[in-house]
Amino acid sequence: MRRFVLFASLRNHFRRRFHSHYINQNQTHLLSSRFLSSSMASSKSSPAVTIDTINPKVIKCQYAVRGEIVILAQKLQQELQAKPGSHPFDEILYCNIGNPQSLGQQPITFFREVLALCDHPAILDRSEAQALFSTDSISRAWEILDQIPGAATGAYSHSQGIKGLRDTIAAGIEARDGFPADPNDIFLTDGASPAVHVMMTLLIRSEKDGILCPIPQYPLYSASIALHGGTLVPYYLDEARGWGLEISELKKQLEDAKAKGITVRALVVINPGNPTAQVLAEENQQDIVEFCKQEGLVLLADEVYQENVYVPEKKFNSFKKVARSMGYGEEDISLASFQSVSKGYYGECGKRGGYMEVTGFTPDIREQIYKMASVNLCSNISGQILASLVMSPPKVGDESYESYCAERDGILLSLARRAKTLEDALNSLEGITCNNAEGAMYLFPRIQLPEKAIKAAEAAKCAPDAFYCRRLLNATGIVVVPGSGFGQVPGTWHFRCTILPQEDKIPAIVSRLSDFHKSFMDEYRD
Amino acid sequence: MRRFVLFASLRNHFRRRFHSHYINQNQTHLLSSRFLSSSMASSKSSPAVTIDTINPKVIKCQYAVRGEIVILAQKLQQELQAKPGSHPFDEILYCNIGNPQSLGQQPITFFREVLALCDHPAILDRSEAQALFSTDSISRAWEILDQIPGAATGAYSHSQGIKGLRDTIAAGIEARDGFPADPNDIFLTDGASPAVHVMMTLLIRSEKDGILCPIPQYPLYSASIALHGGTLVPYYLDEARGWGLEISELKKQLEDAKAKGITVRALVVINPGNPTAQVLAEENQQDIVEFCKQEGLVLLADEVYQENVYVPEKKFNSFKKVARSMGYGEEDISLASFQSVSKGYYGECGKRGGYMEVTGFTPDIREQIYKMASVNLCSNISGQILASLVMSPPKVGDESYESYCAERDGILLSLARRAKTLEDALNSLEGITCNNAEGAMYLFPRIQLPEKAIKAAEAAKCAPDAFYCRRLLNATGIVVVPGSGFGQVPGTWHFRCTILPQEDKIPAIVSRLSDFHKSFMDEYRD
Repeated sequence: MRRFVLFASLRNHFRRRFHSHYINQNQTHLLSSRFLSSSMASSKSSPAVTIDTINPKVIKCQYAVRGEIVILAQKLQQELQAKPGSHPFDEILYCNIGNPQSLGQQPITFFREVLALCDHPAILDRSEAQALFSTDSISRAWEILDQIPGAATGAYSHSQGIKGLRDTIAAGIEARDGFPADPNDIFLTDGASPAVHVMMTLLIRSEKDGILCPIPQYPLYSASIALHGGTLVPYYLDEARGWGLEISELKKQLEDAKAKGITVRALVVINPGNPTAQVLAEENQQDIVEFCKQEGLVLLADEVYQENVYVPEKKFNSFKKVARSMGYGEEDISLASFQSVSKGYYGECGKRGGYMEVTGFTPDIREQIYKMASVNLCSNISGQILASLVMSPPKVGDESYESYCAERDGILLSLARRAKTLEDALNSLEGITCNNAEGAMYLFPRIQLPEKAIKAAEAAKCAPDAFYCRRLLNATGIVVVPGSGFGQVPGTWHFRCTILPQEDKIPAIVSRLSDFHKSFMDEYRD
Repeated sequence: MRRFVLFASLRNHFRRRFHSHYINQNQTHLLSSRFLSSSMASSKSSPAVTIDTINPKVIKCQYAVRGEIVILAQKLQQELQAKPGSHPFDEILYCNIGNPQSLGQQPITFFREVLALCDHPAILDRSEAQALFSTDSISRAWEILDQIPGAATGAYSHSQGIKGLRDTIAAGIEARDGFPADPNDIFLTDGASPAVHVMMTLLIRSEKDGILCPIPQYPLYSASIALHGGTLVPYYLDEARGWGLEISELKKQLEDAKAKGITVRALVVINPGNPTAQVLAEENQQDIVEFCKQEGLVLLADEVYQENVYVPEKKFNSFKKVARSMGYGEEDISLASFQSVSKGYYGECGKRGGYMEVTGFTPDIREQIYKMASVNLCSNISGQILASLVMSPPKVGDESYESYCAERDGILLSLARRAKTLEDALNSLEGITCNNAEGAMYLFPRIQLPEKAIKAAEAAKCAPDAFYCRRLLNATGIVVVPGSGFGQVPGTWHFRCTILPQEDKIPAIVSRLSDFHKSFMDEYRD
């Protein structure tokens, strides 16, 4: 106790000296003597918040995509900048996150023209604008401004998003699915993540409420379930069958959860899959819909990669289309479908645009969803505009149509080539088996780690896959995320690698990755 | 039971007919017979979610600013559009929400120029751009693009926001306060609301954790405390003393809460006040800082109206400046200050830009705050850019400086005039007393409602102030929010009215409001 008091008194002394010094230089006149004396009288300085007194749900929440390995990458990048040549590579290659434009993907010109014009409508009437912007971007900007009350792109909108933009999105969904969509079912959000939080807030009452989530999964789901205090009920995708989703596994996990007293409220399905890159077959989706209907589960359909399908034998079908095709309507199944401007060929992550389409909820529940949206007022208007644009791109006959198609197809075809090249390269490596890259933006290869490597990881107090990823980063500058961040069958090891580096970088990535892997195996082979 | 089965079977019959009809026209080929039969076999149709099975915290959460009265206003607006002349007014005047651009306030030209250029950097090099954009907006756009890795405005940024923009904001805070600011203390968010949610998530563990909130308050606080499952510990602002904040009241409420077993974690102060329009005196702020230090409370300082001060005798001081002026540093007080691009003279609500500056938290707590930010990846980049612009507007010598000053001062002086006109008009009405409009964007007049009006409200199953506001809306088209949405001393009645309608509308508002009030009093005077 005496030692503590002494320490506290020394610290207070130092602190007052430091502050007095600073204040003398700047703000002496503001310092009233009554506070100096009260500060001196007080020795209380226990912090208002400590790690032991914050919400334990926050501590429980993990988000590997921006976790430890990325913090290490940022440190290495700073070192490289401060001292070029300090590492055996000259740049950090961020393959940890689906962030295409950070790796050089260019935005779709038409989308950006419209956004710029809506940001500064004062130039729309100027003749110089016609030289700088395509005719259809100018007319689209006018159309959008007409849909916004007072053309005020700086005003809060309706909490679900601007009605005219929701009309456009609903029309886009209708054109995609061949079934009607209602603009009142659309909630525009700052990217898809806040929409997922809204649904978790709605559904989770306590740790007795469970959400069925695929394993591996995108860690937004585990993180938001943890933050909202629910229980993640895992179902394992079958790696041996191309990460297939088996209904028998869903049933088994549901029964297990029930036996533990968990009320399962919803099923998360990510299609195309993140991190697994699988695209669900329609029959499989029908079985999933039937399962949710029979078990009274809300279907949370993460459909943000709906434009990212790379193999001709697969096709994206929205769960709403599948349900409606089965004859199921509003009263049969509660469905929230998430879409985002961050993915697809557009990759506009920084714009934070997205929406959810909610169907099969009663009016009183929808009122509650609306209320939650209204507490944050509305999502950003540029993101809202962009969400309407991706669901309604230029059409045949529009001035931008050809250049738009060329940009879109250039990106999607290149992504398909990159996916295939990386998949083949990974499959050629000792002990690595990589899934078929059907869609989305990732590969999730499995690594058979030698016992010696697993022991070395244990010694380094590190999960074996994290150990591998850290070694890879330190040797090559390539950032990938350990499989443990997504979940995997215990005793198996994976990592997630995006297919997003520009095509001219792919050969170097393949050769650096291959060289590293060979030397890693040489070091640790049993 | 039999009746239920019959009903369900009839409904299923109808539903299938409807769907079959739709499907026949559109997607017959997709409908596999096995699902028609399974659909027919199943009679289960209890919804996955009912109002009784959702998270009760969601039901508890209320947000009056976009509540019942606004829904009524939207209905009236639709009626007016469908049938002009159907109401005794020809437009709805939204005075319910601080949304300046929805009422015709024009954005600051320089800010919009920079945003447009950052949205479509391809035009920056074009000679036509020089005719359309000011020189300094072009150079500022280049500067900002240089601060963004790869100039990629469509990429996710660092989860705290783009480092270069945080540098600019920190420099702006430093210039404002005369004390250093650290860019690592800045977390950019989609408006201020998500920042408030982050702090509530961090601090609230259960209903045993309390947050001291002013009454009246901006309902974001009550809503987010309810959603996060904490307890709002009210402290009453003293209307008789210009909505003054008395430390004795804080102490009393803190002790009362403690006696009830509540652990009070934080104190919310809104300065300038919403809805009360008061601007705190520096001595008062010093007392508040001292109180938080002594009691170990986090100070949550809502400073989004920092540019909105309308009376020469008052001045905005940030709580950080006040604390530092008192000699208090990082170890003395935990402080989160919220700022937004939605308020001030800029009023860019739809851009959803904002930040919080967090000081006085240990590194392990900051890591947790960072983790929460990372789960949603980042805030929107246009909002981030705008947040940097409002903290670093054009300077003397810049091409835009004079026009920028004219736009800014035009808006602020006009707001001051509107505030005064409305304040005087309200004070001239029988039974209404209105506070001094020192700052922010609102007036919060008190109405002495006659007993007869209170009885009429009871008969209409409505709070008396909500009754008054509904009558006002139905008679005049003016939308204001009942005091009960913000909290008030029991038995007193108020409403919140923004000062934001454009100046040419103010005379009509004053006369409509006065006429309504007189006839209301004539009808109900005791």
